[in-house]
Amino acid sequence: MAYKIDGLQYANWSEKIFSQMQEGRLDCVHVTIAYHENFRETVLNLEKWNSWFEHFPDQIIQAHYAEDITLAKASGKTAIIFGFQTPAPIEDDIGLLKIWHQLGMRIMQLTYNNQSLLATGCYETQDSGITRMGREVITEMNRLGLVIDMSHSSQQSTLQAIDYSSRPIAITHANPNFWHDAKRNKSETILKALASSGGMLGFSIYPHHLKDGSNCSLRQFCEMIAKTADIMGDISALGIGSDLCQDQPDSIVTWMRNGRWTKTTDYGEGSAELPGFPKQPNWFKDNTDFLNLETGLRNTGFSQTEIDAILGDNWFRFFKDSFGQNS
Amino acid sequence: MAYKIDGLQYANWSEKIFSQMQEGRLDCVHVTIAYHENFRETVLNLEKWNSWFEHFPDQIIQAHYAEDITLAKASGKTAIIFGFQTPAPIEDDIGLLKIWHQLGMRIMQLTYNNQSLLATGCYETQDSGITRMGREVITEMNRLGLVIDMSHSSQQSTLQAIDYSSRPIAITHANPNFWHDAKRNKSETILKALASSGGMLGFSIYPHHLKDGSNCSLRQFCEMIAKTADIMGDISALGIGSDLCQDQPDSIVTWMRNGRWTKTTDYGEGSAELPGFPKQPNWFKDNTDFLNLETGLRNTGFSQTEIDAILGDNWFRFFKDSFGQNS
Repeated sequence: MAYKIDGLQYANWSEKIFSQMQEGRLDCVHVTIAYHENFRETVLNLEKWNSWFEHFPDQIIQAHYAEDITLAKASGKTAIIFGFQTPAPIEDDIGLLKIWHQLGMRIMQLTYNNQSLLATGCYETQDSGITRMGREVITEMNRLGLVIDMSHSSQQSTLQAIDYSSRPIAITHANPNFWHDAKRNKSETILKALASSGGMLGFSIYPHHLKDGSNCSLRQFCEMIAKTADIMGDISALGIGSDLCQDQPDSIVTWMRNGRWTKTTDYGEGSAELPGFPKQPNWFKDNTDFLNLETGLRNTGFSQTEIDAILGDNWFRFFKDSFGQNS
Repeated sequence: MAYKIDGLQYANWSEKIFSQMQEGRLDCVHVTIAYHENFRETVLNLEKWNSWFEHFPDQIIQAHYAEDITLAKASGKTAIIFGFQTPAPIEDDIGLLKIWHQLGMRIMQLTYNNQSLLATGCYETQDSGITRMGREVITEMNRLGLVIDMSHSSQQSTLQAIDYSSRPIAITHANPNFWHDAKRNKSETILKALASSGGMLGFSIYPHHLKDGSNCSLRQFCEMIAKTADIMGDISALGIGSDLCQDQPDSIVTWMRNGRWTKTTDYGEGSAELPGFPKQPNWFKDNTDFLNLETGLRNTGFSQTEIDAILGDNWFRFFKDSFGQNS
């Protein structure tokens, strides 16, 4: 075991970053391949990934199942799991879930900040919960072995997703709001429901989700993990979902926030004064820094087994249980 | 061995037809999933197939590789191989070939009667051969393990495809024109080039490709196979590609011929007087009649080994050699 897995990244992918994944000993990264893209646009993104797999076969392989992560680890490569941060790539067509499953997508958010066809996002004022189509999509995702991700969803929608789903769900990248009260961070109610249902929480290192933002220390971050473990009962539901957007220009965070849905500018967690990506903490600037997390957790008192679980073994177990088909 | 494989069908699929495949002992059918459909429309067709696989798991399975045909045979099911009769589903985007490979498509015609972005169809007056994009597509199909099908292509385009392709190609459904001189049937030059390059010819039982049309006898058809074997050297390149369009309404053949490319009506091999599907010969009306071919070939003097080769073992060998990736 002792897998190292990052539960979410959206980098400006390049050979440099793929090499840094090996330096950081990452066996697997769940990468976002779509935010606001429709079906055909997301296929274009997949074509880019196919080209990267073709050109960098010694660094990355596509993971369809947890076993591919084992293969990647054995050969010193990084397994890439595809995910969507919004359901835009399935449009209004539930049959596209199976198509995306065939193409290797394994994790999908039901919402991204806004109301979607499926559920309510964490920026809406009214939280109407899981929609009619949302329930159908949850059932089909359960059948196929696709992970429901509620990182950007609202409170009721998240609790309902945990309830309706017959399989554990994930919050791939968020922190508890007892530590830092951001719209994207999660309540104790959600954390407890997630833990008791066998779900997973990936701790985010995106500065807007951190206490003291870019100045958050590794020690503060790791102590927050320890406190969250106390609230959730143990460490079995905990992982990392760094939300690392390495090498992305600021135009990308503007696009993440605004997509095509608004004519005025939405600054999300930023502001008109600070509209771009916030500066990463100095202990997590790129993929090589994944190794710092091990040091931080050790200094906070976690055992090696606990460190291994949090840095990847928990995600591995969850992916192994989640990606198989329910017939 | 003794596989039974049909090299092309485009039926109005139903539980009845899937059951008849079992009655006819078909271990594998290459089915057309697109004519004029663009990428997104073809994905909708694939969604229908996914639904059939979900609802009829005891009758059909999707074949990605020849080994899946072996699995199907062992369990009394029929393996379904996906193919396109035009390159419309890749639009102008070569990256879609890999996407379609991921989705299980394995055989694609470069043209369908008309000029395409890739090659010239057999109904054009000028045969300009393989285009610039056509050469690129052939190279990528060779790399991925996708079979180039020239059934509806013109003479020069077909010969050039055989020449440019580093792997053997197929004419999945056509007959020799020495026997019946139709635009869709093939010259001895093509047949010999196909044989010497390791390609495959699937004999069509679509009446417009048969001598005496709907009245063609099983004996005539099997004697034509024997003569073709003489011309091509032996029987190793021969298979069946029945072109069976079981249970399709006449509107479908009109659509096959006209797609969206013309405002006047093209009757193709039909006529204003006989615009619909021609009547099938009485010895090949549906999938259960595949067994009649065995009787016909035996009565024409073929040995059991030769019969097995023509009715499926040759296609199996060809698929086994063709579907693997060339890296």
